[in-house]
Amino acid sequence: MGAESDIVLLAIVSLLSACQHGYYARLVGRSRMKHKIMPPAVTGHPEFERTFRAQQNCMEFFPIFLVVLWTAGFFFFQEVAAALGLLYIFARHLYFKGYVTSAQGRIAGFYLSLISLFLLNVLSALGITNTLLKKYLDVNIVKQVHHMF
Amino acid sequence: MGAESDIVLLAIVSLLSACQHGYYARLVGRSRMKHKIMPPAVTGHPEFERTFRAQQNCMEFFPIFLVVLWTAGFFFFQEVAAALGLLYIFARHLYFKGYVTSAQGRIAGFYLSLISLFLLNVLSALGITNTLLKKYLDVNIVKQVHHMF
Amino acid sequence: MGAESDIVLLAIVSLLSACQHGYYARLVGRSRMKHKIMPPAVTGHPEFERTFRAQQNCMEFFPIFLVVLWTAGFFFFQEVAAALGLLYIFARHLYFKGYVTSAQGRIAGFYLSLISLFLLNVLSALGITNTLLKKYLDVNIVKQVHHMF
Repeated sequence: MGAESDIVLLAIVSLLSACQHGYYARLVGRSRMKHKIMPPAVTGHPEFERTFRAQQNCMEFFPIFLVVLWTAGFFFFQEVAAALGLLYIFARHLYFKGYVTSAQGRIAGFYLSLISLFLLNVLSALGITNTLLKKYLDVNIVKQVHHMF
Repeated sequence: MGAESDIVLLAIVSLLSACQHGYYARLVGRSRMKHKIMPPAVTGHPEFERTFRAQQNCMEFFPIFLVVLWTAGFFFFQEVAAALGLLYIFARHLYFKGYVTSAQGRIAGFYLSLISLFLLNVLSALGITNTLLKKYLDVNIVKQVHHMF
Repeated sequence: MGAESDIVLLAIVSLLSACQHGYYARLVGRSRMKHKIMPPAVTGHPEFERTFRAQQNCMEFFPIFLVVLWTAGFFFFQEVAAALGLLYIFARHLYFKGYVTSAQGRIAGFYLSLISLFLLNVLSALGITNTLLKKYLDVNIVKQVHHMF
């Protein structure tokens, strides 16, 4: 069974994030109807434009998020990566909700999302360095940290 | 060999979908030339605007599709996930072709793509629940369903 | 250890590419400030519009790149896929830098990025064909090529 339970938390967080992004696409559709902005137009009422840009920004960062989530979870600790992934999802929730209200409202959520991406990136780099050390120098730091708990 | 053949169908569907999305990027380029819309402009002739928005919408959903495809295929049945993946590719084909012709033309393909995403999402949730049950309660439902066939 | 070292190079390239895309998002933010273009607006000064479109194009191709990188690396040779992945990162660097300067400046980097995507696609197709041959005909070509070196 090993392999599946090693990544199940990462899969859960990815799936939640995918649902969140699907939901944001739906909110853009609703905002279109509310402000009567017919596709393919993407300009018109300021609230629609903010909703659309919020969703676009989330979509742009989604593949980046997935890469650092899985690299951190696979090469470092799955549990820590999944927790930071939940933080990212929450940050994006703040960002989207804030951005729909005002351009200023996006900032807190955005910085929180950057912090969680940055931490996932650091964990990824540590995990990968550890794998390279194991491969070429037969040293395993992550395992030693694991043993400390 | 195990691992490779466990994901080969998912890899084939992902690769087909990646080629499809690359092809749509190319169609946007061709539409630029046809209507003489020079980069970085993304507005002008309505047909170009529809083609561009069709491609943008496909691109936005691509990471969502990949997440649900792989989660469903890895935690549930690879074959079912791959079949739904092919349905999604076909739905996107209808969507894109329809949207280039008219904004109304995008709707049938779009709803079909949502249905396949929804089904992949349900399978993912079932597969993940099963893995959690296996891990914490030592119950394996997917295996029992497998044995029924 | 096997599994981790089998994908560590792909993870490194993916992480580098994710950082590159994060950096491009930051450059769009800087260009906003430089030209005083407040969100959610995405039009205004031509240099900003080129920077924004360059980043958008990179983002659109990022999931496509990840799919062909991992498929090629997992089913064919990790080392060759990682090398082509570095070529893609370099090509995107040329593309972005060129596009910020002028629309014409994007072309060389763009074609180089297409070449590396095309090669990764070919390797993916070869690797997948090999896995299918192994599964159904018990023939392993990649292993035989591996033995030649």
